[in-house]
Amino acid sequence: MAPMTAAGERMHELVRRLYPLCRSITGDGVRATLDIVGEYIPLRVHEVPTGTQVLDWTVPQEWNIRDAYIADAAGGRVVDFAESSLHVLGYSLPVSATMPLAELRAHLHTLPDQPSLVPYRTSYYQPDWGFCLSQETLDALPDGEYEVRIDSTLADGHLTYAEHVIPGRVADEVIVSCHVCHPSLANDNLAGIAVAVFLARALAEEKPHYTYRFLFAPGTIGAITWLARNRERVERVRHGLVLACAGDRGELTYKRSRRGDAEIDRVMRHVLGTSERPHRINEFTPYGYDERQFCSPGFDLGVGSLSRTPYAGYPEYHTSGDNPDFVTAEAMADTLAVCREAFAVLDRNRRYLNLSPHGEPQLGRRGLYESLGGRSDAKQAQMAMLWVLSLSDGEHGLLDVAERSGLPFDTVAAAADALHGAGLIKA
Amino acid sequence: MAPMTAAGERMHELVRRLYPLCRSITGDGVRATLDIVGEYIPLRVHEVPTGTQVLDWTVPQEWNIRDAYIADAAGGRVVDFAESSLHVLGYSLPVSATMPLAELRAHLHTLPDQPSLVPYRTSYYQPDWGFCLSQETLDALPDGEYEVRIDSTLADGHLTYAEHVIPGRVADEVIVSCHVCHPSLANDNLAGIAVAVFLARALAEEKPHYTYRFLFAPGTIGAITWLARNRERVERVRHGLVLACAGDRGELTYKRSRRGDAEIDRVMRHVLGTSERPHRINEFTPYGYDERQFCSPGFDLGVGSLSRTPYAGYPEYHTSGDNPDFVTAEAMADTLAVCREAFAVLDRNRRYLNLSPHGEPQLGRRGLYESLGGRSDAKQAQMAMLWVLSLSDGEHGLLDVAERSGLPFDTVAAAADALHGAGLIKA
Amino acid sequence: MAPMTAAGERMHELVRRLYPLCRSITGDGVRATLDIVGEYIPLRVHEVPTGTQVLDWTVPQEWNIRDAYIADAAGGRVVDFAESSLHVLGYSLPVSATMPLAELRAHLHTLPDQPSLVPYRTSYYQPDWGFCLSQETLDALPDGEYEVRIDSTLADGHLTYAEHVIPGRVADEVIVSCHVCHPSLANDNLAGIAVAVFLARALAEEKPHYTYRFLFAPGTIGAITWLARNRERVERVRHGLVLACAGDRGELTYKRSRRGDAEIDRVMRHVLGTSERPHRINEFTPYGYDERQFCSPGFDLGVGSLSRTPYAGYPEYHTSGDNPDFVTAEAMADTLAVCREAFAVLDRNRRYLNLSPHGEPQLGRRGLYESLGGRSDAKQAQMAMLWVLSLSDGEHGLLDVAERSGLPFDTVAAAADALHGAGLIKA
Repeated sequence: MAPMTAAGERMHELVRRLYPLCRSITGDGVRATLDIVGEYIPLRVHEVPTGTQVLDWTVPQEWNIRDAYIADAAGGRVVDFAESSLHVLGYSLPVSATMPLAELRAHLHTLPDQPSLVPYRTSYYQPDWGFCLSQETLDALPDGEYEVRIDSTLADGHLTYAEHVIPGRVADEVIVSCHVCHPSLANDNLAGIAVAVFLARALAEEKPHYTYRFLFAPGTIGAITWLARNRERVERVRHGLVLACAGDRGELTYKRSRRGDAEIDRVMRHVLGTSERPHRINEFTPYGYDERQFCSPGFDLGVGSLSRTPYAGYPEYHTSGDNPDFVTAEAMADTLAVCREAFAVLDRNRRYLNLSPHGEPQLGRRGLYESLGGRSDAKQAQMAMLWVLSLSDGEHGLLDVAERSGLPFDTVAAAADALHGAGLIKA
Repeated sequence: MAPMTAAGERMHELVRRLYPLCRSITGDGVRATLDIVGEYIPLRVHEVPTGTQVLDWTVPQEWNIRDAYIADAAGGRVVDFAESSLHVLGYSLPVSATMPLAELRAHLHTLPDQPSLVPYRTSYYQPDWGFCLSQETLDALPDGEYEVRIDSTLADGHLTYAEHVIPGRVADEVIVSCHVCHPSLANDNLAGIAVAVFLARALAEEKPHYTYRFLFAPGTIGAITWLARNRERVERVRHGLVLACAGDRGELTYKRSRRGDAEIDRVMRHVLGTSERPHRINEFTPYGYDERQFCSPGFDLGVGSLSRTPYAGYPEYHTSGDNPDFVTAEAMADTLAVCREAFAVLDRNRRYLNLSPHGEPQLGRRGLYESLGGRSDAKQAQMAMLWVLSLSDGEHGLLDVAERSGLPFDTVAAAADALHGAGLIKA
Repeated sequence: MAPMTAAGERMHELVRRLYPLCRSITGDGVRATLDIVGEYIPLRVHEVPTGTQVLDWTVPQEWNIRDAYIADAAGGRVVDFAESSLHVLGYSLPVSATMPLAELRAHLHTLPDQPSLVPYRTSYYQPDWGFCLSQETLDALPDGEYEVRIDSTLADGHLTYAEHVIPGRVADEVIVSCHVCHPSLANDNLAGIAVAVFLARALAEEKPHYTYRFLFAPGTIGAITWLARNRERVERVRHGLVLACAGDRGELTYKRSRRGDAEIDRVMRHVLGTSERPHRINEFTPYGYDERQFCSPGFDLGVGSLSRTPYAGYPEYHTSGDNPDFVTAEAMADTLAVCREAFAVLDRNRRYLNLSPHGEPQLGRRGLYESLGGRSDAKQAQMAMLWVLSLSDGEHGLLDVAERSGLPFDTVAAAADALHGAGLIKA
């Protein structure tokens, strides 16, 4: 557990570093986020100009913000962007005005049922401005005139996203995606970013079979932009996983791809099902994170989503309660461990062909079978060899063998290696 | 409930009007029945001559009866056809004789286990004559000579059936069939006839997608005759429903088509399953009503059967206990309501193709999506749009969407209308 | 029960006759076994020379043994092959030596956890010699010098197996296989041999549809040899059953073929499922008896395995506890009865084609249906006819009809015979 715990602590540190930045679907907050991620893993950053047509969408203007506040008559800042990036409605137009509270109220967003928390709100595609604050803060505001200032710009610029690629032995790709557009929210999605970063570092050491592509992009428009600019590459994407809400204390939740029985779905079910972890496996729905885009019917990729408590499933969701204290090193380490286990299975799950399919091959003379017959304790490793031989008919992969035999995947994969080494099966 | 209750009362009135008539598989009783039905909905009546070859069968001679009785030595009628059409064995040959009770007994049918009830018996294809009476009546008959008279004719004539057609926007047909051959039995099948009549009236107001064909025909030989004379039309029958035993107080029972997963089967399961009604869904068996013919393997139509308590499932079945008091206005109104709901789903259940299948289309700029992002309460209507987009791949219809999403069919259909209006999907 | 009990007693007698012989995968013990079997049913015996290449294997040298013992310093035999064939490690090389107990121990096999039982051990493909004895015997041996003698020969010769064929009306074959290589073990597999012998005798009287081939061969190498020498015949094998552990007091266990839903699998499930017998149905695994070879992916035959308690499932397995007292006449009679029932179904399970598939044919005028209509007690035989007509679409066999209708297979088969006799269906 020691290295894992260490990774957990380092992921939590990354979350804390990223937390103050004001991310949105475009702008310098995304760039600053990618700069920090780039300290951990090399990134290729893409800048896509405003107005670029991407599938059914258009890259929007770039939004940047320097300061924002509501000040009372005495000049005291009663709501201050400098304290939390959540305080400003995302994509707020610039404003500089003085107005009575009654008029200001139309631009204030609170959570009456969670009076101490600040909500997260955006208005990307509807020109607007506004502030988010706690109901308690609002209730404490006396009537009167307030100075309102949002020092933002909304202008032609770029949409920013980044890729990190781990080359594999084959060009077929596995995509790991996490959204980088949410401002000061820890579980949604700094924890996902952190797990992705440390997953990439771990995979790089393992010289994987597949090429793994990590995508750090703003939600929806970022995934759509990537899909629009990579129409040929998409054809090589075999499997994928969207990481979101990866750090809270809840149990793990895997959401299946639209296909429902894609290989990643089966792998996650196997890894979660054979672990001791409590977990949930949910059916696909077309709402959620960027699996929505990857699984849209025109692409229909085998992309699922791994979370702990899913979006909107915890009271802190999309509020100031989703802060670094809400996520834990242990939870992120656990999410990372499951990802590593799953990709270890996915990466080794291949179909073999039994080259001696008529009757059993004589394992004994190849040193693959104990020579002293008649004993009733057939060993697991030998059973795994018999199962691999039995099911290696071109229709079944090693995961099929593990599931049908009830043997651990590792044992099955080792048996396949031994049989491959003896020339009894081929990939 | 008021219009429905009114329909229930009118259906019960129709049952009471039809009850006294002596129907059989041919004859004037059928014609009189169709005359009354024709007061409610226009009918096209067909007369098929005796001897016509229909599939493996031959249209039999036409049977008509004017009077029948057993009279005692004093001339008193102890069993009298004028009291109930059940008293005569259906298709009885004419007879006029005097014989001792001992000899007469071979021609008397009773129900020893239900001594107060008169059974319903026929002998269509085996020349015979006979009377049906209660065991109590029989037990009370003293020995002695009895006058036996059946004033019937069995002669070349016609088999009579009728159709009522509601033209749709497409030539594909839905068939609704009910048998009209049973004499004074209310649930079997005057209630089915009544529900069919009022269903036809309701559908006519709705300008349906499909063409709906209502068939009023004698059981078995009538359906076989229709099938034999409509070999080309059968190819256009997409769905169908046989209505029988539609008015008793029991819970609704749907019997699947032979296919088991025909669209009508899925629609009925959905409508009954999402209603609050207790109900049963039974597998197909090749015994029952005219679904037997429509589902015979050479046709194998998607035709199920809707009943309340199925045939032979209630003690009054095929006895004088199945009288107008046995069926209720409420039960028939309920059967009618389910038929209307089911046909509303069936009629709107179409497959669409997502014309923007790569990534999600931007619903917001089309006014289809709330523009203020970040809120966790995704509304049902928006979810329905996302589901329709996700599953409109040419493989799934709106009922699939409703079942997979768990959303009400109406919501899904409305979402499809909105998306269709926005040019995002096509039929 | 009388004939069955008689068969049980005769099977037990055969077990007792075969028990003392020292069988192995080759040698005179197998020949002596086949000589005795040949007294019950005619056999064609095959002798395959040492060195013959059979699939991935080579026929080994032939092993024969005349005497073997361990004698103490006084010349007393403390372990004696003459008492039980289990006392010698199968395929032991000849040895004649005197050595101290400490040195001898490396060649002694015991069961420390079952101290009173002698284990069964072999070393077919690894040159070795050894003795098997009870732990209690070993513990009682004083230190000192022992004379060790195994009077065996391992030399070029033959592998021996036998076939018994019951010709059917078609060349398609059902194979029944049992291994004949185990020495003095009653359940494994003298009971299987005995059930096979009496099953063959019963089938011969029934003039079956299929050709039935009974195979008496040494395990693994025998089945592989047969498969290697019958590559064309294998293509005609439609179904098969391996009989093993067929006589203990446990409940019946059917192990499915690798296909899992082969016809034999469905037949056995039906026969066991509709009987009152407690039983188990196990999924295929590539470990067990010669179903391993028949179901290897290159052949993938529809061959399952019937046992009572499966291999390694009882403490007496592969020990001297598996003696004639461990198996019972009743258990073998029960196994035989299930085999006969299953083959009766298998042999009659054919697909028919309804020649009058449009609507129901008129059964009444063909004398197949009661002519007096209106009665609610549809008889089982008539239901069976309707079911056979309904499902005889070229896709379903009589077992499908029995399973879907819930009617007994015999009733369904009789209905098919009646319909076939009336020209309404064809095979």
